[in-house]
Amino acid sequence: MNFTIRAARQDDCKDISRMIMELAIYEKMPDQVKISHEELERDGFSSNPFFECLVAEVHEEDKTKDGHTVVGYALYFYTYSTWKGRSVFMEDLYVMPEFRGKGIGKGLMSKVAKEGKEKQCARLQLTVLDWNTPSLDFYVAKGAHDLTANEGWHFLRFDEEAMANLAKDAP
Amino acid sequence: MNFTIRAARQDDCKDISRMIMELAIYEKMPDQVKISHEELERDGFSSNPFFECLVAEVHEEDKTKDGHTVVGYALYFYTYSTWKGRSVFMEDLYVMPEFRGKGIGKGLMSKVAKEGKEKQCARLQLTVLDWNTPSLDFYVAKGAHDLTANEGWHFLRFDEEAMANLAKDAP
Repeated sequence: MNFTIRAARQDDCKDISRMIMELAIYEKMPDQVKISHEELERDGFSSNPFFECLVAEVHEEDKTKDGHTVVGYALYFYTYSTWKGRSVFMEDLYVMPEFRGKGIGKGLMSKVAKEGKEKQCARLQLTVLDWNTPSLDFYVAKGAHDLTANEGWHFLRFDEEAMANLAKDAP
Repeated sequence: MNFTIRAARQDDCKDISRMIMELAIYEKMPDQVKISHEELERDGFSSNPFFECLVAEVHEEDKTKDGHTVVGYALYFYTYSTWKGRSVFMEDLYVMPEFRGKGIGKGLMSKVAKEGKEKQCARLQLTVLDWNTPSLDFYVAKGAHDLTANEGWHFLRFDEEAMANLAKDAP
């Protein structure tokens, strides 16, 4: 099966939004998704976008039973390490189940790495749930290190209310 | 002791660079620091900066024995959640040991939260080493959740060579 990987356009946001929900269902947290395709359009396709996105597209004859030809995406942005400098963070990598095992996920991730290298990034980072062994194994097989297991890095979050409480005390 | 928190300027990069190394020594990974103050100047103070930074400054009469008045910093950038939208990530928060316990760390973090709220961010995120219990306790006391402990999120990284290998295969 042939597929194309290309930069997402604003009119892909409905497809991306659909796949964000599919991925959240797989991650067993569908009630966490609060974002609409309109917000994706605003935040990703304005003059100072908060993220970049690639989509994987198949030919019309290979479309899903629901008529979708956009069957995977990788959403990423640039971050910064005070040890190594410019870095790229892949927030989501998703391929619809019936299109897995065809190199689409690897293709999307490789393209993110290439984009990062072109921006002189020294690292590609991501987070994975510990029970998601198919994904963990996939990333480790491709050369990733598990920094939580190996070095003890924990991921912390202030949610909206805790963040608002902090902000109130800003000097 | 009075202190001021303000946006970092390009000429603060030598101080920031010095404190990045002090923090890496505290984190027991000083050999990981590969970045120079010139790179910080280029990446943080150009037209499309990769990060933003706040510094904490004390009065001349409270300067360190080495003559430093810039005694803390918080370095952060904007990221994106496909569940909640705009987020702010605090890469580093550091206060020189002799200036701790005076509210400088809290002040820096509160100001990062405030900047994030002004950009409509729904979350403030960071990573901490699991053995660094003083910092973990500080963040949790201020309202942070440990997503690695509670939900199982692991942090993965492709270093430069693994990233180059991936990029070679990009479609």
